[in-house]
Parts: sequence; C-alpha cells; structure tokens
Amino acid sequence: MAHLMSTSCSIKISSSYRPCGQPLNQDRTVLPNSFTIKTSKSPFKRLVSKGHRAGRSCLVLATAAPVSKEVSANPWSGSDRSPNDSSKPQRVMVIGGDGYCGWATALHLSNKGYKVAIVDSLVRRLFDHQLGLDSLTPISSIHNRLRCWKAITGKTIELYIGDICDFEFLSETFNSFEPDAVVHFGEQRSAPYSMIDRSRAVFTQKNNVIGTLNVLFAIKEFREECHLVKLGTMGEYGTPNIDIEEGYITISHNGRTDTLPYPKQASSFYHLSKVHDSNNIAFTCKAWGIRATDLNQGVVYGVKTDETSMHEQLCNRLDYDGVFGTALNRFCVQAAVGHPLTVYGKGGQTRGYLDIRDTVQCVELAIANPAKPGEFRVFNQFTEQFSVNELAALVTKAGQKLGLDVQTISVPNPRVEAEEHYYNAKHTKLIELGLKPHLLSDSLLDSLLNFAIEFKDRVDTKQIMPSVSWKKIGVKPQTVPAN
Amino acid sequence: MAHLMSTSCSIKISSSYRPCGQPLNQDRTVLPNSFTIKTSKSPFKRLVSKGHRAGRSCLVLATAAPVSKEVSANPWSGSDRSPNDSSKPQRVMVIGGDGYCGWATALHLSNKGYKVAIVDSLVRRLFDHQLGLDSLTPISSIHNRLRCWKAITGKTIELYIGDICDFEFLSETFNSFEPDAVVHFGEQRSAPYSMIDRSRAVFTQKNNVIGTLNVLFAIKEFREECHLVKLGTMGEYGTPNIDIEEGYITISHNGRTDTLPYPKQASSFYHLSKVHDSNNIAFTCKAWGIRATDLNQGVVYGVKTDETSMHEQLCNRLDYDGVFGTALNRFCVQAAVGHPLTVYGKGGQTRGYLDIRDTVQCVELAIANPAKPGEFRVFNQFTEQFSVNELAALVTKAGQKLGLDVQTISVPNPRVEAEEHYYNAKHTKLIELGLKPHLLSDSLLDSLLNFAIEFKDRVDTKQIMPSVSWKKIGVKPQTVPAN
Repeated sequence: MAHLMSTSCSIKISSSYRPCGQPLNQDRTVLPNSFTIKTSKSPFKRLVSKGHRAGRSCLVLATAAPVSKEVSANPWSGSDRSPNDSSKPQRVMVIGGDGYCGWATALHLSNKGYKVAIVDSLVRRLFDHQLGLDSLTPISSIHNRLRCWKAITGKTIELYIGDICDFEFLSETFNSFEPDAVVHFGEQRSAPYSMIDRSRAVFTQKNNVIGTLNVLFAIKEFREECHLVKLGTMGEYGTPNIDIEEGYITISHNGRTDTLPYPKQASSFYHLSKVHDSNNIAFTCKAWGIRATDLNQGVVYGVKTDETSMHEQLCNRLDYDGVFGTALNRFCVQAAVGHPLTVYGKGGQTRGYLDIRDTVQCVELAIANPAKPGEFRVFNQFTEQFSVNELAALVTKAGQKLGLDVQTISVPNPRVEAEEHYYNAKHTKLIELGLKPHLLSDSLLDSLLNFAIEFKDRVDTKQIMPSVSWKKIGVKPQTVPAN
Repeated sequence: MAHLMSTSCSIKISSSYRPCGQPLNQDRTVLPNSFTIKTSKSPFKRLVSKGHRAGRSCLVLATAAPVSKEVSANPWSGSDRSPNDSSKPQRVMVIGGDGYCGWATALHLSNKGYKVAIVDSLVRRLFDHQLGLDSLTPISSIHNRLRCWKAITGKTIELYIGDICDFEFLSETFNSFEPDAVVHFGEQRSAPYSMIDRSRAVFTQKNNVIGTLNVLFAIKEFREECHLVKLGTMGEYGTPNIDIEEGYITISHNGRTDTLPYPKQASSFYHLSKVHDSNNIAFTCKAWGIRATDLNQGVVYGVKTDETSMHEQLCNRLDYDGVFGTALNRFCVQAAVGHPLTVYGKGGQTRGYLDIRDTVQCVELAIANPAKPGEFRVFNQFTEQFSVNELAALVTKAGQKLGLDVQTISVPNPRVEAEEHYYNAKHTKLIELGLKPHLLSDSLLDSLLNFAIEFKDRVDTKQIMPSVSWKKIGVKPQTVPAN
C-alpha cells in the first residue's frame, strides 16, 4: 500500500469549512483560523518546538494555541520512570488514532491530561472510498477533528500522518514525540476485509505484522522504557471447548506442569495477523526486555464517549456495512431502517462484547499500570458474553419499545466458524485494575437505536448484507462495481 | 528482495564448463552439450512439451534428453486421485530445491520415480555472496547440477527460477507443472540471519509468511487436491517443561477437555515466521479443505545421500559458519581444522537431530501417505535428542580416533534461550509410516569428519564464531566489511 504522502510537504490550510460551533458540554470557543502542516528532517529534535523539516512524515499542529494547559495535568507516570520525570504528563502515542477505537481513545487520554500524539496513515478512510462504504455518522477530517478538540479544550493532540511500515517515518515520530507509552490500534482490523481476495489477505498480514515489528524495533532502538499497549482480539482464541484464560494456561501433562501461552485458533487472515503479532511481541519481551500489554478485545459497540459527545465535529465513526460493521452496531442500524437483523447461520456464535466507553477506560488503565520490563501481559478486554441470537433478541425488544417493527432473518454464514459451541472466557484482570464496566442495558440500546434513527437517511442498505465469503475467496482482485 | 530475473529471457548456454565426468556409482555418461533456458507466457500449457513463453518465470530444461525414463516408475500416487491418474507418476514441486535439504530431497524423489520440478529464487546463494560466506563443499550451479543429474540418470528435473512472493510467477509454475504435491522448503531458514538487523528480521517474516500464503492460494485456485508438505521446525515449540507432542495436545481444564494446537514458544524471528506459517496453514485446511503436512524438523546433519554421492557436481552444500551452520556439522568442521568446538553458554541446550538421509526419507513418506482433504497433520521430524555438550563429546571422541586434537570452549551465548532445561519431544508418527532412522553412529561421525578434513583447505575460520546477537540486533543495516 503506497504511502499517503510520499514527499515532504508544508501546507497552510485556511479555515474555510463550517466552524466548530457550539460545543455541547462547554462554552462557545473561538477556533484558530489557520492550521499549519509542518514537515521535519533529521537530525530529529522535538518538532513541536523546533519545527524542523522531515523526509516523509507530516506533523500537524494547531500552532496558534498554547500547550501549557496540558502540563498542568499530572496523570500517573509509571513506576519505573526517573524522579525527574514525575512532574511531567505521560506522553502517549496512539497509532491508528483516526479510527473507531483509536479516535475515542486519543480524545479520552488527552482529556485525562496525557500528552497525546496520533500516528495514522488514514488508510481506513481510503478503504471506505475503495469499497464504496461510509460511516453511518458523518465524520470530520482528522485535521478538523483536532482543531475542534483544541478549540473546545485548549489541548493539542499532535498528528503524524504516515505509514508505520515505513520505518524511516516511524523513527521520526519516535524521535520527535518521545513516547512513554504507545497504544497500537494501527492495523487493518476487519476479518471480512482480509478475506476479500488474495491481495487483501496478503496486505492485512504484511501491514499488521511488519507494522508491529517496526514498532518493536523503534521501542528497542529509541525508547526502551516505553510501554507498548497493543490491541489484540478475543478472536485469536477461537472457540475451544475449555475455558479461555487470559493469555496463558497451566497444563499438567504426563506428570509434569508448565504455564504456556494459551493455544490460539484464529479464523481469518486478520485474526491470524493478530496471533502473529502476539507471538512476535512475546518474543521481544523475553529477548529484549520490552514491556508490553496485549489487550485481547471483544466486539466493541456504541459510538459516544464523554469526549466524542462534546461536539459534532468530534463524532466517532459507526460502521454498519458487511465488511467493517460488527454485530450489535449493525443490528441497531438495521432495526432503525426496517431492515431485518441478519443473523449468520444458526446464531449460536458467542463472543465477548464491550461498550466503547470501556475500551477507552481499559486502555487508560493499562497505561496507568504498565507492564514490567520484559513482561508480556495479556488482558481479555470485554465485559459480557452474548450469542448473536441473544443480541438480536435484545435489539428486537428495544426496537419494539420505540415502535419499530424488528424482524430477524438467518442468512447463510459467510464465515467458517462453529455456530453452536461452548464459550467461557475469563476477563478479571482489568476489573482488578479498576475497570467499572458499562454493561449493555436497555438505556444504552435505546440510545444506540435513537442514534441510528437520527442518521438513518445516511444508510445505504446495499452495504448491509455480507459480501465476502471465507470459502470463495480467490486470487482475482475483487473490485466494487459502481451502482 | 528484488526478483533475480525480472524480465523475460531466452538464453542458450554452451557447455564450456568442466564436464560432469565419471559418475561415482554409474557408467560414464555423455552430457548434452547445450542447455536451453526457455520462458513461457499465459495461457499456460505444459511447458515441457509446448515450450511457450512466460512473463517473469524462467523454465530451465535439458531439452536434448528424453523424459520417457521417468514414466516407467510408478510411485504411490495418492488415495484420492482418480483411477485415470493411477498410471502416472506423482508430480512433486520442490520449492527451495536448490538448498541444503531441498536439493537432496529433489534428487531423492526424482530417483524414486516422482516427476520433480524445482522452484527456487536462488536467493540462498545471494546471501552467501552478501555475507561473505561459502559452503564447505564446492557446489555447482543449479543448471549444471540438473544437467549432471540428467546425464547420469536420464531423469529430467524441471527448474523454475523465481520468487514465490511474486504470485504471478507462482501461478505460472502451478499452471505449467500441475503438481500433485508441493514440498515447501522455500524460506529464509536461518535463525541468526533473521536476527542480524531489522531489515533481515522483516525480510524473513515477510518472505516466509507471504510466500506460504501465496502457495496456499495457488493450491486453492489451481490444484485443490494438491498435498502441501511444509517444512516447519522443532524450534517452534521452544523448550516447555512438559513433553512436546506432535502438533496437538489434549488439555483438561476446569472439568472440560479439548485437543488444541500445541502452544508454541519460538525464539527468533525466523522460528516465529514458521509458527505464523503453521497457523495460516491450519486455518486454510479448516476453511478451504487444504490437505497439509507440517514437518517440524529437528537439526539436520550430514551431507551425503545416495543421490548427491553419485557425482561431485551433485554434491550438497555444507554450512559451517556462524549464520547458516548448525551444531553438529559445524563441530565436525571445527574439529577438522583444529578450531575449538564452540559451545554456546552452558551447552545443556537439547534438541532433536536427524541425518539428512532421513530428511529425504521423511518427505517421501509424507508424500506417499498424504493428508486427507481438510487435515492439518503435524509430524515431529527427528530421530534422536542430544544436548550441545553431548554432541561436543561425541565429536571429540570421534576426532581422537582419527588423531585429531579436539578442544571445546564455551563462548557467550549469542541467543536468548534456556541453557539447562527439560526436553522430551515425541516423534513416533513418521516411524509408524515406515521411517528407518539412520541413528548417529561412530561410522557416520567418522565419515563426516573425514569429509570435513577432505575440504578443510576451503575453511575460512573467520566465519566460524557467532557474529549475530539476539540482544544487540538493531535498526542499522549491518554490512560485512571486506577483510
């Protein structure tokens, strides 16, 4: 995948778009009326203050506003940092910070007083263009998002636009931003996308595995104390017939006992790429003393967090299509537009789920309680288990309360997976760190449904049905015909 | 890594090199005096007979000689093939057939009556050039090797020169050769090589994972009945404190039981790439019905097989250097030149070992008894376990018998691994299929030592010591200074 920006650039963007307007939870704020994209070049200093020019990276700063406001916050800054650092906020790099979970996390951490930088190639937006898909919600450009955030809160989030598979670019971000923690959402994250055709399967594994390898090398080379918080997926485990533990399992066999990595049975090239990442990270923890937390996340639902609710220009994306949409979010959109809920196969597929407000909370807990040097720590990041049929029933009931006529249909399962199986996954470690779960409730479902109804005119029903088959994937590149 | 040949080519090579000469085990044979490299182009027919032109692949054939001799042989041809096919020899594609194990295997299968094609980018020879290394034994070009084989046995081995990461090239080989089985040795196979620097680590994982993904897609698309025999490594398992089973382990946990993939703990980017491959292959067996055998091979020693012994131009490579050399072969070369045997750390590292004559036997057994459609079968391919200290003692004793003064030194371990540990790995499945092991004996060690003495003038002692550190690997590209 070509870099989005392959040459140096220095661009000044005038404020010609619709102004940020009335923040929902704050007083009216005057936006800066210009926006500067700067580039930097080695040798690297802190680009924020020095403004040097770079090779292929783009550093985007809302330069008109002071950054002093953030320094007053003082989040927990890690047990192993030197006393000299204790007065400074932790610096957190959020890779993939323009995406669904990444954007919510970046704002949450910024709001909590962390110094945040987003690193993103914006390729997720390109996927939408290429596949003819769109978020249910209208989302602003990353530049407008950050300007709005700055206007409302006074907080600057730095932006590095580039591809972490380009190690030269990644090196620049590390040497410029000097992260204390890296939250790594920067991967192709859709199982169906990875099963479209050979080239997307190869892209997914290459992009995810090489990107993560580069992050590991960057930490080793430039920031060896930096804590890696890597987003994995519960899908790495598959559906074994025994309880799923958090990363490791103690096995007694032929009279001897050892605690070993929990066996993985991933079921798409995407899920497999996450298994590869986990194995690579575990090795570097052992060999190099990297400190890492692997967050095996369940299926995320919801769209609003405290921060994304502050203004419509901060609104998060919500995917309901057959490629990027996930079960509960898609069901709510289907109910809102009168489309039957599409249950794949028998609907007994059971997974862990969590509210996006818990995603951001979990990541913050991981950062605030870092892994030790050399530790590869695994948390199962979800709050409740549901089968697909249970979700359909919940959405049907909530829809009826709102006067919607909700039907459910079974469609042939495009995936290869057990449709009736045992599932019991442990998820206590984040609770022990202090997670206060937002369990799926009637009020949340009402809110999600109402949100979907609010935007139902934006729904393209042609995107809803599954279009990718695990068994039919071939080597011919798949294109999307114009309708 | 750029393709070795990126454009079409049609080359005629005259026979100006030293002729093949007296075969060791056969009558003198007249070599063909010219050699044609042909290229082909889609749509693909059998290039052997049609000689079409191709895009990027190079098909090399000794066109002067008849191929009828092979057809008389009739190896077992698979239980699931149609009756119409039963009279034809199985067609086996050996990817990486110019390497240490691949070359011996290709000749062995050809000798047993299989119709063989070698697919190889020859990049292993490039690694030697780039790192300033060389095989103990002088090895002929692949073209001369195959011409010699043809001259001695009358058997043609087809040759496709190209990179399997190039799917267009790989497609051409599949459509041209139409394999019934693919033996996949075509990977970067050195742990130290993968730990030289970031770019080699990334190359190793990208090359191995993408190459294997392409092979899986080629089988699905073009030859769905084709049996994949993939070389893995015992190093995927690491050194757990419980017995190592063959691929799977039955776990009872909290009152329930399941048989799951055996947990892996690989300890280099190379070993990790093999774990990634195993996971990807297992998924495609389940999702697409691929039939696959994963041969988790131990450390291979020895150099001679029945076939490579037939003529000096068929001689196999023998690596003794710190990057590609492995324990027993390297010790024999060290003993031959009076260099102390280099034990890394405490020397209690225990692994499975096997004679290269058993490698070729195991691969043949796997081909002759293919996995069922959808089956992901795992064999542990080794015959005996030794610690490094035990090997050093055996070589010392054998050297003394030959009048050599053999010393042993401990050098700092460049790897990250346990130096004293439990190790008990099962290896019964290949025995059950009929493997007759060549156990490490005094006579084999004598033979190996005498072989090393024969070529000791070719030894470059500067290559012997370990030069790659698991902990010191960095992002700066490592170059080898000219001496």
